[in-house]
Amino acid sequence: MAQIKTGIVGGTGYTGVELLRLLANHSDVALQVITSRSEAGLAVSDLFPNLRNYMDIQFTEPDVNALKNCDLVFFATPNGVAMKMVPELIEAGVKVIDLAADFRIKDIAVWERWYGMTHACPEYVEQAVYGLPEINRNAIKQARLIANPGCYPTAVQLGFLPLIENNLINTDFLVADCKSGVSGAGRGASVGALLCEASESFKAYAVPGHRHLPEIKQGLELAHKNAVDLTFVPHLTPMIRGIEATLYAKVSTDAATLSDIQVMYEQTYQHEPFVDILPAGSHPETRTVKGSNLCRIAIHQPQDNDTIVVLSVIDNLVKGAAGQAVQNMNIAFDLDEKAGLNIVPLMP
Amino acid sequence: MAQIKTGIVGGTGYTGVELLRLLANHSDVALQVITSRSEAGLAVSDLFPNLRNYMDIQFTEPDVNALKNCDLVFFATPNGVAMKMVPELIEAGVKVIDLAADFRIKDIAVWERWYGMTHACPEYVEQAVYGLPEINRNAIKQARLIANPGCYPTAVQLGFLPLIENNLINTDFLVADCKSGVSGAGRGASVGALLCEASESFKAYAVPGHRHLPEIKQGLELAHKNAVDLTFVPHLTPMIRGIEATLYAKVSTDAATLSDIQVMYEQTYQHEPFVDILPAGSHPETRTVKGSNLCRIAIHQPQDNDTIVVLSVIDNLVKGAAGQAVQNMNIAFDLDEKAGLNIVPLMP
Amino acid sequence: MAQIKTGIVGGTGYTGVELLRLLANHSDVALQVITSRSEAGLAVSDLFPNLRNYMDIQFTEPDVNALKNCDLVFFATPNGVAMKMVPELIEAGVKVIDLAADFRIKDIAVWERWYGMTHACPEYVEQAVYGLPEINRNAIKQARLIANPGCYPTAVQLGFLPLIENNLINTDFLVADCKSGVSGAGRGASVGALLCEASESFKAYAVPGHRHLPEIKQGLELAHKNAVDLTFVPHLTPMIRGIEATLYAKVSTDAATLSDIQVMYEQTYQHEPFVDILPAGSHPETRTVKGSNLCRIAIHQPQDNDTIVVLSVIDNLVKGAAGQAVQNMNIAFDLDEKAGLNIVPLMP
Amino acid sequence: MAQIKTGIVGGTGYTGVELLRLLANHSDVALQVITSRSEAGLAVSDLFPNLRNYMDIQFTEPDVNALKNCDLVFFATPNGVAMKMVPELIEAGVKVIDLAADFRIKDIAVWERWYGMTHACPEYVEQAVYGLPEINRNAIKQARLIANPGCYPTAVQLGFLPLIENNLINTDFLVADCKSGVSGAGRGASVGALLCEASESFKAYAVPGHRHLPEIKQGLELAHKNAVDLTFVPHLTPMIRGIEATLYAKVSTDAATLSDIQVMYEQTYQHEPFVDILPAGSHPETRTVKGSNLCRIAIHQPQDNDTIVVLSVIDNLVKGAAGQAVQNMNIAFDLDEKAGLNIVPLMP
Repeated sequence: MAQIKTGIVGGTGYTGVELLRLLANHSDVALQVITSRSEAGLAVSDLFPNLRNYMDIQFTEPDVNALKNCDLVFFATPNGVAMKMVPELIEAGVKVIDLAADFRIKDIAVWERWYGMTHACPEYVEQAVYGLPEINRNAIKQARLIANPGCYPTAVQLGFLPLIENNLINTDFLVADCKSGVSGAGRGASVGALLCEASESFKAYAVPGHRHLPEIKQGLELAHKNAVDLTFVPHLTPMIRGIEATLYAKVSTDAATLSDIQVMYEQTYQHEPFVDILPAGSHPETRTVKGSNLCRIAIHQPQDNDTIVVLSVIDNLVKGAAGQAVQNMNIAFDLDEKAGLNIVPLMP
Repeated sequence: MAQIKTGIVGGTGYTGVELLRLLANHSDVALQVITSRSEAGLAVSDLFPNLRNYMDIQFTEPDVNALKNCDLVFFATPNGVAMKMVPELIEAGVKVIDLAADFRIKDIAVWERWYGMTHACPEYVEQAVYGLPEINRNAIKQARLIANPGCYPTAVQLGFLPLIENNLINTDFLVADCKSGVSGAGRGASVGALLCEASESFKAYAVPGHRHLPEIKQGLELAHKNAVDLTFVPHLTPMIRGIEATLYAKVSTDAATLSDIQVMYEQTYQHEPFVDILPAGSHPETRTVKGSNLCRIAIHQPQDNDTIVVLSVIDNLVKGAAGQAVQNMNIAFDLDEKAGLNIVPLMP
Repeated sequence: MAQIKTGIVGGTGYTGVELLRLLANHSDVALQVITSRSEAGLAVSDLFPNLRNYMDIQFTEPDVNALKNCDLVFFATPNGVAMKMVPELIEAGVKVIDLAADFRIKDIAVWERWYGMTHACPEYVEQAVYGLPEINRNAIKQARLIANPGCYPTAVQLGFLPLIENNLINTDFLVADCKSGVSGAGRGASVGALLCEASESFKAYAVPGHRHLPEIKQGLELAHKNAVDLTFVPHLTPMIRGIEATLYAKVSTDAATLSDIQVMYEQTYQHEPFVDILPAGSHPETRTVKGSNLCRIAIHQPQDNDTIVVLSVIDNLVKGAAGQAVQNMNIAFDLDEKAGLNIVPLMP
Repeated sequence: MAQIKTGIVGGTGYTGVELLRLLANHSDVALQVITSRSEAGLAVSDLFPNLRNYMDIQFTEPDVNALKNCDLVFFATPNGVAMKMVPELIEAGVKVIDLAADFRIKDIAVWERWYGMTHACPEYVEQAVYGLPEINRNAIKQARLIANPGCYPTAVQLGFLPLIENNLINTDFLVADCKSGVSGAGRGASVGALLCEASESFKAYAVPGHRHLPEIKQGLELAHKNAVDLTFVPHLTPMIRGIEATLYAKVSTDAATLSDIQVMYEQTYQHEPFVDILPAGSHPETRTVKGSNLCRIAIHQPQDNDTIVVLSVIDNLVKGAAGQAVQNMNIAFDLDEKAGLNIVPLMP
């Protein structure tokens, strides 16, 4: 089979270099163009020396015609960039996977309020498929435009959805206490992400409201077919990669024991290549998924009370970004869903 | 005034070296004896080279008679050690501050279940004063035996108590999602606390039940004069020092606005030398209290919903252990409460 | 072609888990047995949860007969273990790659002095091939017993050898100032390797003498056909993986300019799949080889003086241990030398 | 005695916040003004929350008249700022301590070449005293203008000078292999100092030439009364604070044994409050000086060969910057040299 002709817009940040790492060893993909206004002319391996000898391509000036020759274009750009170029590419028959947030929220007013800009192509939001394969695999197969989920939303939704879909919890008071490594803040130079500011410290941030809140709520409410009351607090933890979500909810029925719930999670995800339900009593560590596309989940019911605690870990740059984008590509192009993603996590 | 003749039992762990650091510059204290069976004969500055030229004393074999000559003895020992020696010291007129858990829990049966041993002197538990100065200052002044609080219980209680004391929240579903640096695991050699295991990773632990849970519940229920339903999940975060507690509760009354609650916290702690209520909207970082006895707290009410989020940070080795012990000593011996504790946090 | 039937003795440490990671995706290898007295009965994925779903094998009691059915046995054991089992395996026709130090030093008396034990099979030391492929590829092809090099010796020899082989430096005063991540200290529980002891600090260690000194000297002197005067100082740096070696020597001839030397290094290693000579003026970072079998090298001549500075970086667990072992296996079994090692370094 | 009226120009970087930390508890100092064009109007405790409740002053616009009312002005500014304001202040009778490099190098041509600018007041360079108290204490007492040494130069000179002053080493080939925490790169937002770039990695930098090289050479050559041939390679190590210098030299005489040299170092520094010569065989760790003004040094002679290895550690922000500035102030104003600097290093 011919390789998929692929382009990347952006790609100078951490999701970009991670996407390049994954594509470098993906035998079904031919990367034809990678565009960056700021780095045009630079070899990607000069910007990202881990790619030396693995990736022989240079950043070029954005050029929509070059992109139109691709079968697939990834956007690894800041929010608000993809929406300006997507219509032209889609019309030209190119499939698009946007790793940013432009097409994740169906309610345009909500999106505009949280992202602080006017949406450039609301009509494409409607047709975009939210790229969480565990929920939307069939739609992804047919999609022309895939909105790759955010990192927190991936970890939280995979953790909460089985409880919600099975109506096992009270949705009046859901808590998602989430912790992210610093790579989630991106590769831009900022004082707050300096080693001297972010190491040897821990903090909550964006407690009044984080952009991933409406995305998570949309997913949970779609499953619940009703409103949910979710409190989401993200935290910055002093490491490079990884997200841990600790999820709290009250069970709404006495009928479900912890072992029932354990079985239910195992069954829900039994055919999923990238969701791993750990044995009862486990405490997943983010490092056990480092560099891989896995989400590892454990379920607890402390002191046999009526509170369920779900622990969910991913690598924010892989299952939370570039890896999930490759998984979506594999599905959309009818490849083996694990192609290019069969990576053993790096430990220690 | 004569210096307080002081002894330390144990002191080879992280709370021990931190206590030595604080006492080294405390002009009212004369450290006369420090005992350690394993390190007898060793200079403390050989074990802890940061103390070189600041602390000229050797570990000696445990000797209760040497300790009886002290005005005050600190126990910086594993759980279960202090209870065997405390009665003899108290009877000899020595004041005792136990940095371990032997005297923290009033209900002996609860203590014995969580700590897995029989208590050696239950009658002393009754007279012991729980050494959280913000709650028990007057009792501490008179105490012969002070149970120094645990690290998590300090951060969580200081954060939750104003809400509970003022009956502002629904105590049916309290969540304390807490994160600790690795020094909380102690200085003992264990695989899990190796740099290669604990750095670049994040995990929850002890979700089924942690020994600090009954201690926290005891404090909250004493204030509430009733049972509370608390879910407490500790996490290990890849840094040396610091605890962050993110606390969640539903407000029980519409009467209290966030700004009312902010004012209430400020008033509650206005005379406290070591509790700092941050301006509304703040996100305290653990590093801003590193090496100091401070607890910094911020209050949020995300999206003006009915959920209150309290953020509370301490240095687990200082306000969560050795610093609080020194604060208790200062109170019990009628010294300036800040003596030896006027330390500007080290940043960066 | 049939897969290589492979066994591992030991494998509960960091070189072990890294070897397992690499073999998990090596299509020419069938891991048949992994032995560990301490962990017999445990699934490797329970000890190393990164291997969950990738490696379905349990540790078993050491059993030389099971090992004799293998084509190849790796020893990922402490020093002194392999030498007791190797003769029997070799006689049974099994190839052996020892990742420890038992067969690295040709001079038995030197080995016994540095390693503090009597060698169990000196006659096998003689026939063992020192497994540095860049030097000994042809011998490795024929070898029955391969002594996999130490981590520091790999980085230092690859950096120094071109200068020595070409007689360009004065060997009276060579300095190798080396820095290692903490994984070099192994997975054993020790206070010095705790996160709280080894992070946020930097130190030299073993300055009076480190076991890798005689190994490095042996390699350099073999190339020089004469004695060399080397000072080797290892340091512990607060990270998990990586070794950086900064090498200093005086040029012995005015005839060689820096650009000559640059060209000479490039030519020396031009056909080497895992040695990458960086452009003049580069400063290799250890992270650019993380998880990969690469050694990246840069050459400097500061201020055009007569001192040459060579910078050499490897991942101590890969090119410095398990990756080089796989490379040696590939050579010894006539496989593609890069099989299983085509891993893009993980960055960030 | 009246407090010293003190001003700070700059102070928004890491040497600034460290200077503020030290002055906050210095009872002989009254900080009257701190100027910053970029942060004018901001409370210092809003920029540096560790100072909350310890330091109640705001940044103001630079105003030379306000500064003239001070007894002493510290410059914690980028290179090239102090030289523009110093003459006016000195003429007004204000003492100045420059923490930047404007007055460190006596040879103006050398300074201008390495710093890439024209010096604004060469006549003041001549009268400036190089503020390394261990060398220049008497001159510092009389100085109007003190050039506070660089961080690497402090660690390297204190380590090398006793050998050079006593003519014990061959100065034809000195090596200073130095490692710095990331705070040495400053608080400015830069990609290279991000946690995701600088943690979990180690690298040499500026091998072709670093600005501290001429400063170190100047100091060593002044002691040697002759040229020295020094190779200086700085490295970035993944931690916040600390410098370790590993120094290599050949002994020039057989007369000096290691124990002679050990005694000589101890005698050289026996009255120095901030230089601590460790027992023979020691390996100083940077964390043992964290937050303190100490320099800890150990001397080795590996394998009794003719190479001397000196290990020297400091906290780059304290003895390498702000602490040394306070020490210089104490000397210049005839205070106890340890005033405000009696800080026990924070460990762990």
